Amino acid sequence: MTEQGFLNRFEEFVESNWDRILGELSQLIGIPSVSAKNQSISECANFLKSLLESYGFSVSFLESPTGTPAVYAEKKGGPTSILLYNHYDVQPPEPLEEWETDPFQLVERDGLLFGRGVSDNKGEIIARLAAVDCVEKVLGELPVTVKWLIEGEEEVGSPGIPEIVSRNKKLFKGVLGCMWEGGDIDRNGPNLYLGVKGMLYVELTLRTAKADAHSMYAPIIENAAEKLLKIIRMIKDERGRVKVPGFYESVAKPTEAEKKLMKGLRKSAREYAESLGVERLAVESSKVAEKLVYEPTCNIAGLYSGYTGPGSKTIVPSTATVKIDFRLVPNQDPLKLLKNLEKILPREVDVKVYTVSYPARTSPENPLVKAAVEAAAHVYRKRPSVLPNMAGTGPLYHFVKAGIPTAMLSALAHPGSKLHAPNENIYREHFIKSILHHALIFTKVGGRA
Amino acid sequence: MTEQGFLNRFEEFVESNWDRILGELSQLIGIPSVSAKNQSISECANFLKSLLESYGFSVSFLESPTGTPAVYAEKKGGPTSILLYNHYDVQPPEPLEEWETDPFQLVERDGLLFGRGVSDNKGEIIARLAAVDCVEKVLGELPVTVKWLIEGEEEVGSPGIPEIVSRNKKLFKGVLGCMWEGGDIDRNGPNLYLGVKGMLYVELTLRTAKADAHSMYAPIIENAAEKLLKIIRMIKDERGRVKVPGFYESVAKPTEAEKKLMKGLRKSAREYAESLGVERLAVESSKVAEKLVYEPTCNIAGLYSGYTGPGSKTIVPSTATVKIDFRLVPNQDPLKLLKNLEKILPREVDVKVYTVSYPARTSPENPLVKAAVEAAAHVYRKRPSVLPNMAGTGPLYHFVKAGIPTAMLSALAHPGSKLHAPNENIYREHFIKSILHHALIFTKVGGRA
Repeated sequence: MTEQGFLNRFEEFVESNWDRILGELSQLIGIPSVSAKNQSISECANFLKSLLESYGFSVSFLESPTGTPAVYAEKKGGPTSILLYNHYDVQPPEPLEEWETDPFQLVERDGLLFGRGVSDNKGEIIARLAAVDCVEKVLGELPVTVKWLIEGEEEVGSPGIPEIVSRNKKLFKGVLGCMWEGGDIDRNGPNLYLGVKGMLYVELTLRTAKADAHSMYAPIIENAAEKLLKIIRMIKDERGRVKVPGFYESVAKPTEAEKKLMKGLRKSAREYAESLGVERLAVESSKVAEKLVYEPTCNIAGLYSGYTGPGSKTIVPSTATVKIDFRLVPNQDPLKLLKNLEKILPREVDVKVYTVSYPARTSPENPLVKAAVEAAAHVYRKRPSVLPNMAGTGPLYHFVKAGIPTAMLSALAHPGSKLHAPNENIYREHFIKSILHHALIFTKVGGRA
Repeated sequence: MTEQGFLNRFEEFVESNWDRILGELSQLIGIPSVSAKNQSISECANFLKSLLESYGFSVSFLESPTGTPAVYAEKKGGPTSILLYNHYDVQPPEPLEEWETDPFQLVERDGLLFGRGVSDNKGEIIARLAAVDCVEKVLGELPVTVKWLIEGEEEVGSPGIPEIVSRNKKLFKGVLGCMWEGGDIDRNGPNLYLGVKGMLYVELTLRTAKADAHSMYAPIIENAAEKLLKIIRMIKDERGRVKVPGFYESVAKPTEAEKKLMKGLRKSAREYAESLGVERLAVESSKVAEKLVYEPTCNIAGLYSGYTGPGSKTIVPSTATVKIDFRLVPNQDPLKLLKNLEKILPREVDVKVYTVSYPARTSPENPLVKAAVEAAAHVYRKRPSVLPNMAGTGPLYHFVKAGIPTAMLSALAHPGSKLHAPNENIYREHFIKSILHHALIFTKVGGRA
């Protein structure tokens, strides 16, 4: 059967099972599984276990060192295994007064589905489950073996993931790849990402005196703000070039396949400038995608010293602080960077580390990636944009480091989805397309289309 | 009579009139003339008028554009006129709970006199009045003509002084010089200052986008903090050299007499370092006095951009602010500096001006200065330290600009005087010495010693 043939059959299936699918989404949204408040977490895990078992998955809980269970489900099918990653926890719904509907009740309105987690990422859990069911019913058998990890603490930083991954390598061994949550879709079509940037977030503080001094003493004592400016210039020069030894050494050169991908970025420089509220970008239009994907950065996220209130105060500041986030690309190592940074800093600088996160990329040549891209072209009737990595950061690097090719290969959130905010929503149409897309990916990976 | 002869007679006078003198100080401290609250201002002005009239002064009120009366008193004596400057307003007493005594009641304890304003500067008003009375009684006539301006809004920035000075030039014409309030005294002896530094205090703010952006966009948009660092380096280089055109051009070279004075600074580099809470000063020990007196500065008093709270936030800041105080020396002009600064700043920088204050110096060769220095040597039994200008700033430049040589030629506040703070105090002994010092200055200026 051609792809279009399969898609027609899948569509029919979704239509005739729509009430059940929507009902399951409604049940899942109805459980307020807010990990930040440890609210309804085991309730949600148990619900998912029953739901997945009712579809023939064998389900267990994987221990997290934090005590929050991760749901692990497996359904045998064709010889090729793929891994799905999702999370069943959601962000707190507050501020409640800004919601136009009950955050924990699925509401459909004007083609949109509203509810906390519908986009991030309970909608995708139900879409994937519907896709597994759909492909099995339409093809008469499940063409791939599906392994599925659904953790319960993504919204609080996935503290259990490193240990869950390392303890359960056997379970994940030999999978073709892992489909992470997300990707997204905008008016240009779906956007898929084959990796993430890494991050080192540090706060540097120095003290030059026991207390601020009257500024009449400026001629004879050190000014902490001035000293901090010099320290910042030890880290990066005026033109933005990072001076920490070795910073650029391990930066991976884009492969030919990755270079080709870059041409697929459809968002224009003007669109970026508008959405970021700037008159013009700081780089040439033709370089935007390249910069976002390949450029490691050293960004001043916060800076303060001395008197920061209204009006004037004549002091020589005795302390100064800068917060810096480094975004890293493969194969930069945030811990090596930290070590080299500490080497060049004067001893009196106090270094606080807030985030250590590794960059990761999966090859566009990976068969799961290829299947997802081809399937998307059929489902969405245009080729998706595929970037070697997103400009942001995420814990999927733990999977990549463990040898599991992992990427964001499906699309559900749109630019107005209000992730983490009141009135979170997705398009009903995107939800349906996500079911079809997953079903076609499974079909392709299983060698049936 | 020798100086010592006069001093013995003055001392006898003070002793036998002590209760009256202390009673007058007690009455003046008892009036809570807090200009910031417009409290008891006219009450205090009227009290002073009566008190000064009772000593034979002719007294009037000089209009201030703000409505707060300045007391102007004059008492004819010898042909040489001198001008005294004081203020009858005080700082608010808060926080009240930190006072060990009633702030508006003069209390003597362990050789110290406590009360709001006793040091700044009601004590000096009474000391000067007692000195006029003393010298007149002991010499049988007043050897100098005393003109006296006592304003009522020094603690709120002397907003009326420029107009009072320019409107009343006739009154002040031909005076030998003006004795400003203050000077101070420490364990090394009295410290006199022949001028002040000037100041330009500006706040520079820039905006690079309508809002902060997610730091994943750091590769493609401007960072306001980074841009501010570059702007700061347009104003001064890494070594502290100010780059505003013309900044150093008009700096007056020290005269031979001023150079000689510098050798009189007795506070050691170690003492400065200790009192400022630093391990070591940023300059050579031998250069401390020279730097404090002659070096104009460009000091970062405050700096902030982006996220300044606890923890981490990954943003590209859209605004950044720096507060800078320039301390100026003769003959730098703060308004010219402002103009030249604005010329080199990018147009999008928003400039807020908080303080414009001129530097001023009076020659050590001025006869009033010489008399004060010589008299101090007799009263305190050691030569005073005399600096060409203090490292701080003050409104006496309005007098100097109007052609009135003005300096801080007497000593009352000590390092523990707690000016503007709870438990303000002076030593009873310093109060008496101040009376003697003023009486001897009047005697010398009048040609009688």
